[in-house]
Amino acid sequence: MNIREEVKRMKADSPQMAALSLEMRNRALEETARELESRKEEIFAANARDLQAAEEANLPPSVQKRLKFDEHKLLDVVKGIRELEKLSDPLAQVQLARQLDENLNLYRVSCPIGVIGIIFEARPDALVQISALCIKSGNCAVLKGGKETAATNKVLFEIIYQTVVGCGLPKGCLLQAEQHQEIDELLSCHDCVDLLIPRGSNSFVQYIMNHTKIPVMGHADGVCHIYVDEDYDMEKALPVVVDAKTQYTAACNTMETLLVHRNIAEEFLPEAAKALTEAGVKFRGTEEVSRYIDCEVMEEEEFHTEYLDLMLSVKLVDSLEEAITHINTYGSHHTDCILTENSRHAERFMQLVDSAGVYQNCSTRFADGFRYGFGAEVGISTGKIHARGPVGLEGLVTYKYKLYGQGQIVADYAEGRKTFHFQELSEE
Amino acid sequence: MNIREEVKRMKADSPQMAALSLEMRNRALEETARELESRKEEIFAANARDLQAAEEANLPPSVQKRLKFDEHKLLDVVKGIRELEKLSDPLAQVQLARQLDENLNLYRVSCPIGVIGIIFEARPDALVQISALCIKSGNCAVLKGGKETAATNKVLFEIIYQTVVGCGLPKGCLLQAEQHQEIDELLSCHDCVDLLIPRGSNSFVQYIMNHTKIPVMGHADGVCHIYVDEDYDMEKALPVVVDAKTQYTAACNTMETLLVHRNIAEEFLPEAAKALTEAGVKFRGTEEVSRYIDCEVMEEEEFHTEYLDLMLSVKLVDSLEEAITHINTYGSHHTDCILTENSRHAERFMQLVDSAGVYQNCSTRFADGFRYGFGAEVGISTGKIHARGPVGLEGLVTYKYKLYGQGQIVADYAEGRKTFHFQELSEE
Repeated sequence: MNIREEVKRMKADSPQMAALSLEMRNRALEETARELESRKEEIFAANARDLQAAEEANLPPSVQKRLKFDEHKLLDVVKGIRELEKLSDPLAQVQLARQLDENLNLYRVSCPIGVIGIIFEARPDALVQISALCIKSGNCAVLKGGKETAATNKVLFEIIYQTVVGCGLPKGCLLQAEQHQEIDELLSCHDCVDLLIPRGSNSFVQYIMNHTKIPVMGHADGVCHIYVDEDYDMEKALPVVVDAKTQYTAACNTMETLLVHRNIAEEFLPEAAKALTEAGVKFRGTEEVSRYIDCEVMEEEEFHTEYLDLMLSVKLVDSLEEAITHINTYGSHHTDCILTENSRHAERFMQLVDSAGVYQNCSTRFADGFRYGFGAEVGISTGKIHARGPVGLEGLVTYKYKLYGQGQIVADYAEGRKTFHFQELSEE
Repeated sequence: MNIREEVKRMKADSPQMAALSLEMRNRALEETARELESRKEEIFAANARDLQAAEEANLPPSVQKRLKFDEHKLLDVVKGIRELEKLSDPLAQVQLARQLDENLNLYRVSCPIGVIGIIFEARPDALVQISALCIKSGNCAVLKGGKETAATNKVLFEIIYQTVVGCGLPKGCLLQAEQHQEIDELLSCHDCVDLLIPRGSNSFVQYIMNHTKIPVMGHADGVCHIYVDEDYDMEKALPVVVDAKTQYTAACNTMETLLVHRNIAEEFLPEAAKALTEAGVKFRGTEEVSRYIDCEVMEEEEFHTEYLDLMLSVKLVDSLEEAITHINTYGSHHTDCILTENSRHAERFMQLVDSAGVYQNCSTRFADGFRYGFGAEVGISTGKIHARGPVGLEGLVTYKYKLYGQGQIVADYAEGRKTFHFQELSEE
């Protein structure tokens, strides 16, 4: 059977999946956690095959490290599943309860989105986390992982799938796509896939966004800025810029551009350059910046660059306004920070910078669902529709309106025989 | 200047638009209401030209009626603007306030989406309503109305634009696209338009959805169902099916398909047919239906049809489950109703039918922002991402995360020197 047919069957099963009780979803999660623990040797054996293939293919050490699924990783994912079990139900939440008229009661109630396609990087733990998030939120999921972890993913998927179907979840709850060409087939299923969540390289995510009519949640770029205002505090500023650039360079919330107010450039730039250089960072900047620090001179257009490496773009600005305009023009609307002791400046920056995260005096690296206390992270969105910034379980739900009547018709209201009285109902 | 360049300038102005105080947005609305009243003769004169052109072009009477902008319509739109003024601010609402750690405070705050493109039918009042909604919600808007009201729209737009810019709104707050070919140009502006809201015929909305990378909010089809359950009440059922089919046939929330439980077909169908026939409705149905009522026999695949006319598809089903499957297969996920006195059946229907609105014992025509008490309606969405069902002002806003720190860095948390304590902050 091809992916399209399987996804169609999944779509047909999705209302059943949406109707599962919280108890049933949590039991499926708990059984999955147990099964993963009890069948761990199978998983490790499959992972050993992936690792050997990676070594033979001479994949970079950083990639090989990511593929590894050992006792420690297993412990992590099992812990993650059990934390997810404890989270309150994202479904059946009453978001609005209103009496429109006598015996005509409207409820807005959260429900799953339906069928979600998730295309993720070569990390076996990702497959487990994503499956668990979809089960908790009552969504059916098509999973496509990186080919470098094919053997591990196959075993993990089999364990999860058998377990949850054994717990009574519908057969169409989860589906694994194993072939790369199946991605394009999935992208064409806009009649039965409700949402796509791609993770991976910028160019890959961009490809997905450009080749499907299915709504996409995620981000292609993370060009994050820190603007050092005239009224900054050196003691706070230095650790923050070092952390934002170097704490984990490969992350999307890493600072890529440092903007510095011209009046403090002479004082701040050499100090910042010293601290960052010690952490291994190299610089690119405007002609003017090169007078203060050792850097490669760059062109204006290059300020769009996301390095994901120990490299930083630097530019001087004349004002808070210029910094804001630069960020809105060259940024990716992800996370941007102002370092200032002036709360008026901070408010103006936060108001006018058009990004999912606007920060004062802290590292851009805080942009993360776990650090925001969401308990689970689906991804980070730079779109403004549906979900923005780090997205927790609520990003996997929508809502429906339930209206309970006793035979009411619209003509009575349109022709003035009855009128709505709109009264909020207390929670039941 | 072409649309692309104008929209780019609008995008640059959108943070200023987002930062306007509620007072300023409301004052712009109030001044607009006054200006429309005081310059009404200009508007009526322009409208007379549109009406004359429509008559000369022999447009159908229903269209000609929709084009009319008279004293009554003016009163309506001015009243609408003043009601919008009274609505509470959709912006700057604190949706989450959480202390992540000492002096590290996270807020999720509502803000405008940014630049919205709205393509609407030939109804001059729509231009005023849409502009007002965007002003209230701090969004910049590109407006493209139907060509049949070009003269009226031009005057209305000039009055609104001059007034609000006179009140201090940024020059890029509103833009009118007057040429049809500008639509395609607008569809390609995915780098500066954040959301498209198309209104109009199904094929037009479908065209928009298929030809842009910009997120689209709206609906192409409205294939709404009523399922008459075994446990129905005849007294409630007859008025509801008549209202749902005939109260306003051109609306998207009109019933297009009637599903009837086989066990009650003999009793219910002739009665329903009588009441509907009196209201002018004709029928199409399966072979079996034609044994009970006078109808044209139709094929299964035709149950996708949206008539928007005095025509109804009829089918018998064996069970609640069959009705649900039919609706999920042939419906458009808009609004579907069950007529039943059995609350278990109602709950099952509402749970499993995958539509924006799921009703018990009332007309599908209630699916409307005003009837839901939203005070203003942006449109009705059959998508599940962002907004679903009738969409009020909240469909024009997103949110951003504001994080206030005192120099915190992620390394301290990643390396265990500090831990998050996640504590909800009381509203300020």
